[in-house]
Amino acid sequence: MGFNITEKIISSHLVSGKMEPGSEIGLKIDQTLTQDATGTMAYLQFEAMGIDKVQTDLSVSYVDHNTLQMGFRNPDDHQYLRTVAAKHGVVFSPAGTGICHQLHLENFAKPGATLIGSDSHTPTAGGLGSLAMGAGGLSVALAMAGQPYSIPMPKVVKVELTGELTGWATSKDIILHLLGLLTVKGGVGKVFEFAGEGVATLSVPERAVITNMGAELGATTSIFPSDRQTEKFLKVMGRIEDFSELIADDDATYSETIVINLSELEPLVAQPHMPDRVVTVKSLAGLEVSQAAIGSCTNSSYSDLKTTALILTDHQLPQGVDLMISPGSKQVLKMLASEGLIAPLLDSGARLLECTCGPCIGMGGSPVSAGVSVRTFNRNFEGRSGTQDAKIYLVSPQTAANLALAGKFTDPATWGTPPAKIDFPAEIPSIRHLFIFPPENGENVKLIRGPNIVPLESFSALSEKITSKVLLKVGDDITTDHILPAGAQITALRSNIPAISEYIFSRVDENFVDRMKKSDSGIILGGENYGQGSSREHAALGPRHLGVVAVIVKSLARIHRANLINFGILPLVLSDKSDYDKLSEGSGLTLDTTTLTPGGVAEMTTTDGLKVKVKNDLSEKELAIIIAGGLLNYVGRK
Amino acid sequence: MGFNITEKIISSHLVSGKMEPGSEIGLKIDQTLTQDATGTMAYLQFEAMGIDKVQTDLSVSYVDHNTLQMGFRNPDDHQYLRTVAAKHGVVFSPAGTGICHQLHLENFAKPGATLIGSDSHTPTAGGLGSLAMGAGGLSVALAMAGQPYSIPMPKVVKVELTGELTGWATSKDIILHLLGLLTVKGGVGKVFEFAGEGVATLSVPERAVITNMGAELGATTSIFPSDRQTEKFLKVMGRIEDFSELIADDDATYSETIVINLSELEPLVAQPHMPDRVVTVKSLAGLEVSQAAIGSCTNSSYSDLKTTALILTDHQLPQGVDLMISPGSKQVLKMLASEGLIAPLLDSGARLLECTCGPCIGMGGSPVSAGVSVRTFNRNFEGRSGTQDAKIYLVSPQTAANLALAGKFTDPATWGTPPAKIDFPAEIPSIRHLFIFPPENGENVKLIRGPNIVPLESFSALSEKITSKVLLKVGDDITTDHILPAGAQITALRSNIPAISEYIFSRVDENFVDRMKKSDSGIILGGENYGQGSSREHAALGPRHLGVVAVIVKSLARIHRANLINFGILPLVLSDKSDYDKLSEGSGLTLDTTTLTPGGVAEMTTTDGLKVKVKNDLSEKELAIIIAGGLLNYVGRK
Repeated sequence: MGFNITEKIISSHLVSGKMEPGSEIGLKIDQTLTQDATGTMAYLQFEAMGIDKVQTDLSVSYVDHNTLQMGFRNPDDHQYLRTVAAKHGVVFSPAGTGICHQLHLENFAKPGATLIGSDSHTPTAGGLGSLAMGAGGLSVALAMAGQPYSIPMPKVVKVELTGELTGWATSKDIILHLLGLLTVKGGVGKVFEFAGEGVATLSVPERAVITNMGAELGATTSIFPSDRQTEKFLKVMGRIEDFSELIADDDATYSETIVINLSELEPLVAQPHMPDRVVTVKSLAGLEVSQAAIGSCTNSSYSDLKTTALILTDHQLPQGVDLMISPGSKQVLKMLASEGLIAPLLDSGARLLECTCGPCIGMGGSPVSAGVSVRTFNRNFEGRSGTQDAKIYLVSPQTAANLALAGKFTDPATWGTPPAKIDFPAEIPSIRHLFIFPPENGENVKLIRGPNIVPLESFSALSEKITSKVLLKVGDDITTDHILPAGAQITALRSNIPAISEYIFSRVDENFVDRMKKSDSGIILGGENYGQGSSREHAALGPRHLGVVAVIVKSLARIHRANLINFGILPLVLSDKSDYDKLSEGSGLTLDTTTLTPGGVAEMTTTDGLKVKVKNDLSEKELAIIIAGGLLNYVGRK
Repeated sequence: MGFNITEKIISSHLVSGKMEPGSEIGLKIDQTLTQDATGTMAYLQFEAMGIDKVQTDLSVSYVDHNTLQMGFRNPDDHQYLRTVAAKHGVVFSPAGTGICHQLHLENFAKPGATLIGSDSHTPTAGGLGSLAMGAGGLSVALAMAGQPYSIPMPKVVKVELTGELTGWATSKDIILHLLGLLTVKGGVGKVFEFAGEGVATLSVPERAVITNMGAELGATTSIFPSDRQTEKFLKVMGRIEDFSELIADDDATYSETIVINLSELEPLVAQPHMPDRVVTVKSLAGLEVSQAAIGSCTNSSYSDLKTTALILTDHQLPQGVDLMISPGSKQVLKMLASEGLIAPLLDSGARLLECTCGPCIGMGGSPVSAGVSVRTFNRNFEGRSGTQDAKIYLVSPQTAANLALAGKFTDPATWGTPPAKIDFPAEIPSIRHLFIFPPENGENVKLIRGPNIVPLESFSALSEKITSKVLLKVGDDITTDHILPAGAQITALRSNIPAISEYIFSRVDENFVDRMKKSDSGIILGGENYGQGSSREHAALGPRHLGVVAVIVKSLARIHRANLINFGILPLVLSDKSDYDKLSEGSGLTLDTTTLTPGGVAEMTTTDGLKVKVKNDLSEKELAIIIAGGLLNYVGRK
């Protein structure tokens, strides 16, 4: 039986486990990437492992998130990232060079390679045939240390593309169509593998739009074959030596097949506040637009921005429409400049921002109150733009440019003839010299840690007997935003667990941190779906720092569960959900942890003598990690 | 007796008073400008005057300060500024078009015109012969309403330039030299008028560097003649019709003359934390540099950035040096792009930021902790960069580029041959279409005020009898930063007096606002030099909002005194300074305000029967303003 592309890469990187959907597999990781908002913690964790040099083929540290550098914390983080990269053999990409996923695609990603990155849009590199996955910072640190990356073996879905895009439809509309079809939960545990005659019609940057935003399906990743388009891309990027063909075997099998006829697609839009609320652009005709933003790791390539410039040429934005353009990389910006495309952008009234994530992550560019903003980004969650009541619509660059010029949603039939599909120029200017490649031996590199950067503390092993108290009781659907709020002020503390821990549950109960400080330890009692939302590991690290030893809940969200285990907090589930009502803030609880067995049930006792049964779904390894006091202890510290 | 340039402009605009140094004169104002951080309050004040259309020849509202737009408040401010401009006949310059002073110089400033702007660097336009002064927002609002602008008739200092700049010396070094000579207090009450053979060797943008940073002398303004250079500048800018010659009469007199031989100047630098701590660049050779920033209203012209690009061409920044470049306007950026100068900037590793004030006002680009940053800006006050312990050195673009490439201070003798002086190209691309010109009749324009924008409240007239209490007693040298702190969080509230008032004295006494809220009114007791520092009128508006009726002090700083009068707070000075010790927080005080006379002494009585004599130095008009409840009441509200 033949292999699909995913199976080919997995089988060639399989360190442990079996390729049976759902069973845990360990993968050798060839490449890693980090960005600056998650990177400092990943490198602090790597440092704690005491390994001199990264064990991957390539690890890159990009600075693209906190580039506004309001105050000393962000530039200090970036300085630390630069020095820790040089010391340990990591390539460093300074602020302003570009957006991690765009840069990685242009400069480093390889067909057939495994890549994990501490950013959920790492699957972008799937556009040229990498098996690329988003992961927590500690997972990336472990991969840099040479450890395999563990995931449940995904199901592989074949997405068969037929026909060819026509008119104003773009690859953004392909992924929007898929999101509308499958919803943001439709990809959990799956890899979306693209196939069919339509694949050959899409360039690598077009493919990367799809694999990038495939993250919004909740997928493990998305991947395209490595074919003639891939070869062409790598050739113009000056690295044909990185090319190798990678296509599914003729008799490959898939868990399911979805067919999309590209010829039938038209411009689509995801409405507020979810990327799967997809309708046609024309169905919203008449809705006024006050802002447009073109860029982000989804849509900031040369072809995206050249098309934008061609649409804007000799046109001017109406009064009251703000259009911001963030090129994906200095390479893209140089190409626009060399073709004389800066002037038409500026003359339209558009604002040219730095080559960074920018407005996509709410780093500036917030819309006006209740404003309607059309953006080429990948997420439109409520409040993510920085304006709580703004309405964000996700579209292609072609759609964004046309709607900005109109000042409202219009029917694409009125936009005229689309610019011809953009091909690469014969030669593309390199920016490779802007990356800082590490010295062969980093021994003498001096690490510079600003005052806000605090090395990772050591956590103790699990006590044989837990005697603690419930110090917080919360309801259902607590998100990691509840546990640790986002926002520029708190995010600037990501390198400083003691400081950021002051904000744990601050929006839920402002006295929680005080109570934790007055106790030796504490337990959090939660309801259903505890820890849903973003993957920020700080939502586990902070509680651990404060002394939380266990969370006892009705049910747990997947990524937060993994983070709790990584940092040595017991994730326990009430065997009898009605016990939730019998416990309250202040309830004393004891647990003999030697009675814990993988997947077993243990008994806790309250100070009133009540017995509370708690189960776990921990694997043997996961239980061992918790007993060791967390994953860093488990794999061994310096 | 002939006139100097300053006297020529003043005499042709004199509405009241006599041209005798120190006596109050009223000037007709031809042009006004505002920026967004001070502008919203200026237009709210203009609205309160109930006038349909600005009475100036030209008023322009620029958006260049809060352009990062973190959250809804700043974009809402900008939306308000756009609509209020259209309604009342003001030209609007959207975010990203450029920096107010650079744009005004390029597009609107006129020789011989009077200009006031709600930004202290408004004197930039003196570079082409405008009499251009910084002023409070209310003064600008009044000028827009057609009221004359009152200042004490300044002394006019002749700065005679001989010789010609050589080597790496630039016009920035001329003003740095002057600052070293005269200190930051050396220009109070003076206009610096440039003359001599050296003047003809300086282009208008070079002159504007000098008049811009002349603000750091504490001067009323600085001015250059309008001559062949001015004619040339206006011609290439496509507005030769705005040219008129303006030179001093042969027999003009000056209060004093300073001679500077340009041929003797070498690259200079202002050391932390004052613009007058000037030494030669070579004297600091060896000092390591971690950041450089080129831009700001001082040094962001075409010639500044082209020179920078030429210096950087084929060179690369060393690791760990961050160089940020903020062009002064889209015109400048377009010119760089059309000459192929974007690529060399990017290839050097420099970061290209938007055409805004940016790092100069601490809007991003903060240095690393304890970092040394060389900047082409005009101010290096402690903490202004956003990093409290950073060390900011003020230099020319030429110096900044060379030091950035070296990664440290070096002797200019080692920099090689300077690029030839940059001339203008034959034709300069216009960006005039990017300004939003107001309709002839703005009656139907709909004002949009976001939820953070609160119309100016009405203040009541002064009571005939004040019965109040000292609610805060502070010591000497209280600055407007003590009264109202800066910082992005609080500055975002500049359009909302009720909200920003919650921060009044918050860093001095966190209970002050509470005490004010529990009382009908309050008095602040201060020491010497009360209200020194920045000109922010919010430091008077906030206390007035809270109910402060009087400040009683040992002595008052000049600008804050004017702001107190403008908003109807009595500025009283203790006749006997020893009374300061007899009063404390909680002391009750009464004052019969009908006993107040201009420049007279009145008697207050404490609840214990103690008599406290307080004097004022108010003019008749100023006392009338306070009795009316402030300047807006005095000139008449809608």
